[in-house]
Amino acid sequence: MHHHTDPGMQACIDACLSCYQTCLGMSAGHCLELGGDHARPEHIQLMFACSETCRATAHVMLIGSPHHKHLCAECADICTDCAGECERLGDMDACVQACRACAESCRNMAA
Amino acid sequence: MHHHTDPGMQACIDACLSCYQTCLGMSAGHCLELGGDHARPEHIQLMFACSETCRATAHVMLIGSPHHKHLCAECADICTDCAGECERLGDMDACVQACRACAESCRNMAA
Amino acid sequence: MHHHTDPGMQACIDACLSCYQTCLGMSAGHCLELGGDHARPEHIQLMFACSETCRATAHVMLIGSPHHKHLCAECADICTDCAGECERLGDMDACVQACRACAESCRNMAA
Amino acid sequence: MHHHTDPGMQACIDACLSCYQTCLGMSAGHCLELGGDHARPEHIQLMFACSETCRATAHVMLIGSPHHKHLCAECADICTDCAGECERLGDMDACVQACRACAESCRNMAA
Repeated sequence: MHHHTDPGMQACIDACLSCYQTCLGMSAGHCLELGGDHARPEHIQLMFACSETCRATAHVMLIGSPHHKHLCAECADICTDCAGECERLGDMDACVQACRACAESCRNMAA
Repeated sequence: MHHHTDPGMQACIDACLSCYQTCLGMSAGHCLELGGDHARPEHIQLMFACSETCRATAHVMLIGSPHHKHLCAECADICTDCAGECERLGDMDACVQACRACAESCRNMAA
Repeated sequence: MHHHTDPGMQACIDACLSCYQTCLGMSAGHCLELGGDHARPEHIQLMFACSETCRATAHVMLIGSPHHKHLCAECADICTDCAGECERLGDMDACVQACRACAESCRNMAA
Repeated sequence: MHHHTDPGMQACIDACLSCYQTCLGMSAGHCLELGGDHARPEHIQLMFACSETCRATAHVMLIGSPHHKHLCAECADICTDCAGECERLGDMDACVQACRACAESCRNMAA
């Protein structure tokens, strides 16, 4: 998208921003509208925390700071947790997929 | 990307997040590395302010709040200013294009 | 807090960051825990959109961009809406106060 | 500031938001205006990455997610690096102090 980012990092930025969008959009829409377990504070808080972590991780990669590696490792962890919780809850397929893809990409970037 | 966003709004979110990435990545990389007029405080500040405004505008659209219209109007204004300044400065083509595309998309969304 | 910000602008930054914290903390905690009307999607979405707008408005002031005036005007509007909705709903006093204070400070800054 | 946050966590949120403000405000103002080594890409990128990490760490604490501990650990690391670099560079006292205070608070919270 902008010329100085290498393709591997841009793919990770894309995965982070995709997961950010899915977690934020689904929690503030789908989950609150469904209610029940989908609207429990713990679930919404995890979705938001995952969304914000993905957003900040992409941001630090875009800045070009070598500190992105630590954030990528933490981002992989919270995305893995969010994918697991969403799979258990059900009716959250788009979020499970976005979190899994982001976790894998971030884990590679952190290595 | 996630099921509850209409296609027109998703296109505007995409344009905002693309402009956010380009303004942040180029200012923190390309512009600071070039130095000279590209690294003047006023230019970097405009690029950052444009980047943050695009990011927040996309965020409010993702939340699903009807307040996005006001932010889209302001986002169109700052993107237009940033595109004009970058065109005048030169060697900022990716930013000019991303800002122009975002301004047009936001202006339609604000209407 | 940092030396180059004038006292009036720093007071507005403080009001924005205070309102950001209150709207985010109460929506993700208090409101979701109370349930009922406090957890309706429209209410949570307004609280989040208000929180993000306050956060971005403070950010653009901190950057030092003259574009902050437009964001301050929009921030005053959404804070006023959020204060009114929270007052109507009840049991949201901290949010009503933070939104009112931020709206007044932003309106002065936008003038 | 809002009723459900314990005092220790609120103190850490305050330290993070103070460091966020100082790093962002000084990098986009003071450092770019001084020029020379203060405006080198590596320095500005570190200041921005530190600022964004502090901001996201505060955000996840405000949400109320137990995942804040991992972000606090990473925030302590980048603040320590930023404090060291700013001390070496000179004329960055406010940033050194804000980064040191944030690093200490985040290290306690991560424990």
